[in-house]
Amino acid sequence: MTSTREARAAIILAAGQGTRMKSPLPKVLHPVGGRAMLDHAIDAAEALGCERIIVVVGGHSPEVRDHVVKRLGEDAIAVQDPPLGTGHAVRAAEAVLGDFVGQVVITYGDVPLLRAADIEPVFAESEGVTVIGFEARDPAAYGRLVIEGGELLAITEAKEASPEVLALTACNSGVMAAPVGLLFELLGEVTNANAKGEYYLTDVVELARKRGEPTRAVFADEDAVMGVNAQAELAQAEALFQKVQRETFMAAGVTMPAPDTVHFSWDTEVGGGSTIEPYVVFGPGAKIAAGARIRSFSHVEGASVAGGAEVGPYARLRPGAKLAEGVKIGNFVEVKNVSMGKGAKANHLAYLGDGDVGAKANIGAGTIFCNYDGFFKHRTTVGEGAFVGSNTSLVAPVSIGAGAMVGSGSVVTIDVPTGDLALARAPQVHKAGWAKRFMDMMRAKKAAKV
Amino acid sequence: MTSTREARAAIILAAGQGTRMKSPLPKVLHPVGGRAMLDHAIDAAEALGCERIIVVVGGHSPEVRDHVVKRLGEDAIAVQDPPLGTGHAVRAAEAVLGDFVGQVVITYGDVPLLRAADIEPVFAESEGVTVIGFEARDPAAYGRLVIEGGELLAITEAKEASPEVLALTACNSGVMAAPVGLLFELLGEVTNANAKGEYYLTDVVELARKRGEPTRAVFADEDAVMGVNAQAELAQAEALFQKVQRETFMAAGVTMPAPDTVHFSWDTEVGGGSTIEPYVVFGPGAKIAAGARIRSFSHVEGASVAGGAEVGPYARLRPGAKLAEGVKIGNFVEVKNVSMGKGAKANHLAYLGDGDVGAKANIGAGTIFCNYDGFFKHRTTVGEGAFVGSNTSLVAPVSIGAGAMVGSGSVVTIDVPTGDLALARAPQVHKAGWAKRFMDMMRAKKAAKV
Amino acid sequence: MTSTREARAAIILAAGQGTRMKSPLPKVLHPVGGRAMLDHAIDAAEALGCERIIVVVGGHSPEVRDHVVKRLGEDAIAVQDPPLGTGHAVRAAEAVLGDFVGQVVITYGDVPLLRAADIEPVFAESEGVTVIGFEARDPAAYGRLVIEGGELLAITEAKEASPEVLALTACNSGVMAAPVGLLFELLGEVTNANAKGEYYLTDVVELARKRGEPTRAVFADEDAVMGVNAQAELAQAEALFQKVQRETFMAAGVTMPAPDTVHFSWDTEVGGGSTIEPYVVFGPGAKIAAGARIRSFSHVEGASVAGGAEVGPYARLRPGAKLAEGVKIGNFVEVKNVSMGKGAKANHLAYLGDGDVGAKANIGAGTIFCNYDGFFKHRTTVGEGAFVGSNTSLVAPVSIGAGAMVGSGSVVTIDVPTGDLALARAPQVHKAGWAKRFMDMMRAKKAAKV
Repeated sequence: MTSTREARAAIILAAGQGTRMKSPLPKVLHPVGGRAMLDHAIDAAEALGCERIIVVVGGHSPEVRDHVVKRLGEDAIAVQDPPLGTGHAVRAAEAVLGDFVGQVVITYGDVPLLRAADIEPVFAESEGVTVIGFEARDPAAYGRLVIEGGELLAITEAKEASPEVLALTACNSGVMAAPVGLLFELLGEVTNANAKGEYYLTDVVELARKRGEPTRAVFADEDAVMGVNAQAELAQAEALFQKVQRETFMAAGVTMPAPDTVHFSWDTEVGGGSTIEPYVVFGPGAKIAAGARIRSFSHVEGASVAGGAEVGPYARLRPGAKLAEGVKIGNFVEVKNVSMGKGAKANHLAYLGDGDVGAKANIGAGTIFCNYDGFFKHRTTVGEGAFVGSNTSLVAPVSIGAGAMVGSGSVVTIDVPTGDLALARAPQVHKAGWAKRFMDMMRAKKAAKV
Repeated sequence: MTSTREARAAIILAAGQGTRMKSPLPKVLHPVGGRAMLDHAIDAAEALGCERIIVVVGGHSPEVRDHVVKRLGEDAIAVQDPPLGTGHAVRAAEAVLGDFVGQVVITYGDVPLLRAADIEPVFAESEGVTVIGFEARDPAAYGRLVIEGGELLAITEAKEASPEVLALTACNSGVMAAPVGLLFELLGEVTNANAKGEYYLTDVVELARKRGEPTRAVFADEDAVMGVNAQAELAQAEALFQKVQRETFMAAGVTMPAPDTVHFSWDTEVGGGSTIEPYVVFGPGAKIAAGARIRSFSHVEGASVAGGAEVGPYARLRPGAKLAEGVKIGNFVEVKNVSMGKGAKANHLAYLGDGDVGAKANIGAGTIFCNYDGFFKHRTTVGEGAFVGSNTSLVAPVSIGAGAMVGSGSVVTIDVPTGDLALARAPQVHKAGWAKRFMDMMRAKKAAKV
Repeated sequence: MTSTREARAAIILAAGQGTRMKSPLPKVLHPVGGRAMLDHAIDAAEALGCERIIVVVGGHSPEVRDHVVKRLGEDAIAVQDPPLGTGHAVRAAEAVLGDFVGQVVITYGDVPLLRAADIEPVFAESEGVTVIGFEARDPAAYGRLVIEGGELLAITEAKEASPEVLALTACNSGVMAAPVGLLFELLGEVTNANAKGEYYLTDVVELARKRGEPTRAVFADEDAVMGVNAQAELAQAEALFQKVQRETFMAAGVTMPAPDTVHFSWDTEVGGGSTIEPYVVFGPGAKIAAGARIRSFSHVEGASVAGGAEVGPYARLRPGAKLAEGVKIGNFVEVKNVSMGKGAKANHLAYLGDGDVGAKANIGAGTIFCNYDGFFKHRTTVGEGAFVGSNTSLVAPVSIGAGAMVGSGSVVTIDVPTGDLALARAPQVHKAGWAKRFMDMMRAKKAAKV
């Protein structure tokens, strides 16, 4: 924020019931790119440098309220109860804004793709009312923006529009900005003298014009202003979000043979010169460095992967997995809260939970870090260059020394010193001819049953 | 069936060779949504309340015959051999229908998307011949319906059509209905005086008109009447099927971030308010309750999942898996024919086959229910609140008592009493310096080889 | 090559920096269908029967040079350094071609979808210059082909084209052919008197016409001539490649419910009458016989699968996996360099690396072939009809005899004779009431912590 810029506030409307979602989860908490739609709206407000961010919640959404309080504090909450229209919702924020002076933008908790850069133009003028419009591919039921000589004359609902106005394709996104004083003065004049008996935010445009205040529209892309009211629209928003992510990463030099099969989260980081094979899902918090390779059917969440590391196919990295350069995590291997040193390997069928693995250590197929005793979690340490044989259970807390070895099938409960071999293995015994006799007997039994 | 409604019968044509499929499996047995196309046709006939359902099979399709007999009995079989056209195929059903009185509809074993509701209108009139038509996006080679004043004047093959008729977009689906007596009288008059020497079912329209019988068309959606003659068309039918399933579930409140990556079977049930992440495949018989979560890369077949349960990523539920509320089945875990009590968990790399797991029991990573001795299957029981350590083998038949524990890496062959700890573990021994000596020797050996 | 056909040579331009890829890997080495784009270009040249194939590499691409030398030898390398245009690049090949007599075609290392059949027509005429053109959906910046009376009058860059020429949709692919003598004579006359100061290959058309040499265009599909300059274009080429593969396999009788979710490599072989379920990725070298079934989420590379075999879901076949008829490889099973005899099974959570498994042998869940001692790989042999219990470690080199059995949880280091039972298992002991006491104590501890 420069000193010459006016202070900004955002009022985010999030009180809608979202009944068309048919889900117990409040609508604005449904995720896009792994992040609640409401958080996308808050992110945009923060990126715009808003000093105050007020979220208007409904009376029956304790989950939304809790979500906002956790992120922004109690100060950010305004309650609209009962719901009497968008204008009514904005007014609910008036008292909470207190003596704030500056410009206020009104955005929506169910418009997840609108970024700060899309909104910024509403702040270009410090007087009057500015509305974000969009050119609609199919204007249908959207309110039309009647613009003449650069001025926004009216926002006309489709139902009440003349054929000439219906032919307009400039439509209202619902996002608008105005100086705080003007905004609430105008809202004070809005009435509910309409079929639904609601107070409409859009009425402020006409009221502003009556006062001689300037009114105008700035434009955003239709995709950016899309609102989500049903599951199919949520899926559509997700698809648009993913499309941008994929294009952005490809432009940055990420090789993806089938980009449409790679799903990113809102905060995924992938360096150029890395490769993401088909069918990879990134949960939140994944950081992939330049030159890494994520193979097919991998699931990566809260994990960092250094250059030269290779993950998958069928690898699951969970929060706290940190792979150094050249690490290999292979098929059917899960890594959670484990640091893997340079060149360490776990190639097959292993669970590594809560621990540290030294550089160049080799974790055999079927190895389990037994980190949970049913009540608490404990850590496992494997030293540099150690070799852990297949089907081994390392019962944490336990430590395998550098350059030590553990024989296949061992259950290790005692720390293994550097350079030692640990074994916990029963001697192999043979019962001569037993298998033949058993199989003969069982075959006879089976034949008798049939 | 109400008493005022006329009796109904369906003749399903399924005698085609399907040579363009280039597959040893008879065409009508290829699945759409995990169910043979022929069964979809039979389902529709059953949903229409048909008293008799006759499937006309070819002389060289024992598999189709067996399939029909298994579902409908011998009474449902009519054989057309050799194949001399659609009219000839329908006549093959005459004797099998016997003294049936009522309306007959003719449908097709390779038209898998036609539902009862699409067919129902052909029964609206009890006299004359009613044909299902469709508006073709690209009429090309389809037979055209010549309709005037609500009457169907003729079905004209594209080859024989005048430019005026070719310009028509109303096309023939092949599905038609008529009173049984009229149908077979007309078919008796159909000749094979045409280029191919075949008896065409469509000829009955012209013959009916000659007699002064009313003829008409009712319309269905083009997608609903699509026929499958090649693998690419089978894939297209599957895509249309999945599209409807996805839209239906989203409308019911199922959250799917990437609906195009979720594949349902014909009988999949998913409750609203549940979430299906990207890349999930449902085989037949899956029931997902409201509020469950199916994570990425899961495969669910013949299994039921209660609310609050979480499955995957990378979970495979097979027939007989029954997950109660709050159950967690994690990555690389297979569950087959096992009931999991409330809140039970198997989070990593396990095979649970044939058994019962009590509420809140914890099955450690790498645990195997050894249910197969090479000849018979046996059951494993794990009591409520029991804790089974990692890499454990439970050799069935065997039982772990409530609140009992099994140490990591154990092979359990004897029942474990309630509250006891079972161990089957060799003592851990260390060979001091052995690993260092071994690695030094092997490094030297490797260096010598290179 | 018939004796009447003229000798052919190909000059493949591969010196471009590919900076727009933003990848450390040289552009022409990026794969399409699992094979470097440059290799696709070389494949086409070989399929055309070219006696000489020269690849023009840049001064700063040692990786490209090495790649070519490895496949074609040092003779195939021409170096263009510095890069002064396409005409300059082709001239770099002149000395390398030496005394070759015949026709020369110029192709591109970043045009991966152009097949021999698309190029063949350029050789139809043995005199003059023949260019491959294409009808562009959106000609935009492509050079236009000015054709009159079957003659190619000029190739005009879009920047320099008149409105009439810009309206043409016939565009230049860059591929052209001419007799070797003519080609280099014309190139000798090309100047760099243009804005960029480069020598353009396209100038040879105008120069040829000035000499009265015939010039003409033959046409290829736009998709076939697409060039790759950015990651998004690489993904687009891959998508086109996969589309053709999918259509080809479906036409051959392969059943794929969701063909768009199956990813093939350039050399994948799949027999008709087999089924590939959704979400299958084929790396190079996969051969699937007629009548096999590859289930969802499988990854197959360098492996052969016989008829009646069933793979997956979640199976990973790696190079050297050879599955005989009726073999079953189930979920979370990895097979590498192992032959599986008829009807052998490994259904769950296993790693089979470096070995031979006999017919009808049963490999239990959780079994590991411990093939790696940290330095060398060793082989495991399992005899016909043997039964290996769950969670077993077979420490290679080791052999299990025909019809032998291995008890669950065993670590096998000594060969097991035919018909014997091998066990390496500690006795099961129970500590009465221990679990109850432990859990009570831990619950108290946990309660105290909270």
